[in-house]
Amino acid sequence: MNSSIIRFILGYILKTEAALLLLPCLIALIYTEREGLWYLPVAAACFILGSLMTRRKPADSVFYLKEGCIATALSWILLSFFGCLPFVLTGEIPSFTDALFETISGFTTTGASILSDVEALSHCSLFWRSFTHWIGGMGVLVFLLAIVPLSGGSNINLMRAESPGPSVGKLVPKVKYTARILYLIYFGMTVIETILLLLGKMPLFDALCTSFGTAGTGGFGIKNSSIAGYSSYLQWVVTIFMILFGVNFNAYYLVLFGKLKKAVQMEEVRYYLLTILISVAIIFLSILDTCAGAFDALTQSAFQVASIITTTGFSTTDFNAWTSTCKIILVLLMFVGACAGSTGGGIKVSRFVILFKTVRKEFTSYIHPKSIKKIQMDEKPIDHETIRTVNVYIITFMVLFVLSVFLISFDNTDLITGFTAVAATINNIGPGLELVGPAANFGFFSDFAKYVLMFDMLAGRLELFPLLLLFHPSIWKDLFAYKMSVRNNRKYLRSEKKG
Amino acid sequence: MNSSIIRFILGYILKTEAALLLLPCLIALIYTEREGLWYLPVAAACFILGSLMTRRKPADSVFYLKEGCIATALSWILLSFFGCLPFVLTGEIPSFTDALFETISGFTTTGASILSDVEALSHCSLFWRSFTHWIGGMGVLVFLLAIVPLSGGSNINLMRAESPGPSVGKLVPKVKYTARILYLIYFGMTVIETILLLLGKMPLFDALCTSFGTAGTGGFGIKNSSIAGYSSYLQWVVTIFMILFGVNFNAYYLVLFGKLKKAVQMEEVRYYLLTILISVAIIFLSILDTCAGAFDALTQSAFQVASIITTTGFSTTDFNAWTSTCKIILVLLMFVGACAGSTGGGIKVSRFVILFKTVRKEFTSYIHPKSIKKIQMDEKPIDHETIRTVNVYIITFMVLFVLSVFLISFDNTDLITGFTAVAATINNIGPGLELVGPAANFGFFSDFAKYVLMFDMLAGRLELFPLLLLFHPSIWKDLFAYKMSVRNNRKYLRSEKKG
Repeated sequence: MNSSIIRFILGYILKTEAALLLLPCLIALIYTEREGLWYLPVAAACFILGSLMTRRKPADSVFYLKEGCIATALSWILLSFFGCLPFVLTGEIPSFTDALFETISGFTTTGASILSDVEALSHCSLFWRSFTHWIGGMGVLVFLLAIVPLSGGSNINLMRAESPGPSVGKLVPKVKYTARILYLIYFGMTVIETILLLLGKMPLFDALCTSFGTAGTGGFGIKNSSIAGYSSYLQWVVTIFMILFGVNFNAYYLVLFGKLKKAVQMEEVRYYLLTILISVAIIFLSILDTCAGAFDALTQSAFQVASIITTTGFSTTDFNAWTSTCKIILVLLMFVGACAGSTGGGIKVSRFVILFKTVRKEFTSYIHPKSIKKIQMDEKPIDHETIRTVNVYIITFMVLFVLSVFLISFDNTDLITGFTAVAATINNIGPGLELVGPAANFGFFSDFAKYVLMFDMLAGRLELFPLLLLFHPSIWKDLFAYKMSVRNNRKYLRSEKKG
Repeated sequence: MNSSIIRFILGYILKTEAALLLLPCLIALIYTEREGLWYLPVAAACFILGSLMTRRKPADSVFYLKEGCIATALSWILLSFFGCLPFVLTGEIPSFTDALFETISGFTTTGASILSDVEALSHCSLFWRSFTHWIGGMGVLVFLLAIVPLSGGSNINLMRAESPGPSVGKLVPKVKYTARILYLIYFGMTVIETILLLLGKMPLFDALCTSFGTAGTGGFGIKNSSIAGYSSYLQWVVTIFMILFGVNFNAYYLVLFGKLKKAVQMEEVRYYLLTILISVAIIFLSILDTCAGAFDALTQSAFQVASIITTTGFSTTDFNAWTSTCKIILVLLMFVGACAGSTGGGIKVSRFVILFKTVRKEFTSYIHPKSIKKIQMDEKPIDHETIRTVNVYIITFMVLFVLSVFLISFDNTDLITGFTAVAATINNIGPGLELVGPAANFGFFSDFAKYVLMFDMLAGRLELFPLLLLFHPSIWKDLFAYKMSVRNNRKYLRSEKKG
């Protein structure tokens, strides 16, 4: 395995994080907060380590899917490790485990928190916490691809490892430009949301943090009541932007280039919007009696459905108190998730569309045994390989899900809490039901359970395989074998020189 | 579609049921119970209707998978409809919905009951209730195949529609002899269990009913405390026989013909026993403190694990009071189920083995992209078609599961009750958790919820597709078109005669 290219990428990631850590310092300057000082040494450490790692260029810059996966998984772990240090150093989250949980929850755009009083944090830490959502939303490696000149045509493998969905399409032939276009759309939409929030008289700081949380479909609130305290105009702005950030970004690309008709015809987007519509309708009818009126019921149901299906996790009400039917719909939406190629998590709408189509085809085969129609999506046939990986993804997802619920059960919480805690983390949502409902937090779990949930958040964000691959014994054997061969090579060269 | 062969098969099914309904009459004679009289008119009705339906031989006796599925689904519905009438007529279960629920639960070997006081039933009704398990366990169509001379080589399609598991293997080239061998093994093992129970001083009536419940992996008890009141010797006999009836019957066939080594090497059986072993070990350790001693803990954990994984559903204790870890293991075992080709329900061990192997293969492909090793089971490669149908099965299962939980939620019970009620019925187990725990029953559900659960029981027993196919519009169109063509044909012939 080409471990020097992995080292090189990790170095760049650290240097990027060093730069990003300067932003909270700036916020601290504005609000004259002492806590900001602690961000500087962490940034410096990242920069020094990163520089050391990128000092020597990799001998061989070609890498395959395996290297892409490993580099991605290690990047996210490294990012989270250094990202959590300021919380510990400022003493705002004294436990390292808790700080790491909060940071992983931030980067993976989960939004599950261990904090019971968010408002006690300094402005710079609140900013950093929300900003991790924005970084993680589109992906830090995609960002890297947009700015770092990585030679070799195989860096699509990096993007493939980090981007959500059953298949990664390049918008334009060059990965670099694809990454730039994606970030441009992402940035532009975040700015528009911030402006709309400002127009609704939200303070600038709140507007920025809320936009970060929406854009990354993260869900960290900066108020203890999440979004409940804001006006219904602001709630509707957030609702609409959550839905927009859950749409496959390819649609925006098509719109930008005037192919509006093609964007509207995207099957995944249609099913995504249909699911939202039906869910809102059912929940609206269920909660109508308990709300202040039809508009209030519509605001609440639309907000919660958008928040859960896009895996954002903001809340305006304690949906744990809703009827069983509403709760089941929300739990289902947790697993459905947003569109592939969006910033949202979950299993993704397109995977479900493909699965439903395979089932429909099976029924047809019972009735017309000789039919050989291929499954189609967006009027193109889906190849056998994609169907296979979707199936394998679902199975792997279920295995990890079940294993996590089992491990969490050692905490002996009730089954609903355990089940939805795992569902809310592996799908990168945030709140679950019962003890981890929107009015509660994840602080009460044991350290062991917290590490299991952190693993789930990372696995969910990276779509399982990159992270799980780290546990394959042959990866480490490979890495070790490569190091040994490099060392032997050097020894040989040195002995040649001497001789 | 060949609807005349379907009519013919349904007629035979009814005649078989007429004969079987005479057994409870015999029991009523022994115990001199009036209730037995009501079984006679139902038997007579079945016989008359059945005779009418088999009077005319079908013109064309060849049928395909489609006809096999439809015949199987309709057979089970018809069986249940007539089978529940005695309960209504004797007044022991006055509500038709409840009686139908109890009977479907019997035939599908689920064992979920709506009765709060089982001991109030007459002996003949208790016998019929338990006997439905025995009939449904191996399958009534398999029974038919063993005794009725159906010409045409395509009757494997009937067996395929009724037998559980991803692929149906004929033990011997002729379907008729395969069916006979299966019933012989089934009958023999039931007799051995009854004798062992008698040796433990269980009364003959109890021993017979308990054996029926074990053999079919059904789980209807004839006491309100299920099996808890019997000695630990009797509990162990039931435990061991539950496990034995959950084994793939092919293994017994191999043993009978001296191929012991081949039987021991069956992968599915090995994983099945391993799963039991691990589950018992974990639960044993979890409940050790709360039990009267190590032996008691072992008896309880082994009994419950065997009862749930084989989807029998007998109980000796209220496992709803156990720790979260134990409950999660039991819920998982509900879905795992027994071996394919056994009398047990659930998704089946072999399906999981195949799925795990596909996941393992995916990981290998990340590391060795050029590897093209095929997935193997029992040292034979599994063909692509089997893997595909297993995947489709799981997806269809999940869709039906989720839809049922959603529909049940209109009753507004807690989520655990709703979730496990569907899990316990679709996997043909019986008890779930909370309100449907082993100390409770299904009586409190609304009629609507009961019909959903009845559908789930039938869908689970027939492995989804035969039953779901009934809802495919083209099936009815086909049937109608066939009838029309027959009618037109007759008209034409008549006009020919006249002319």
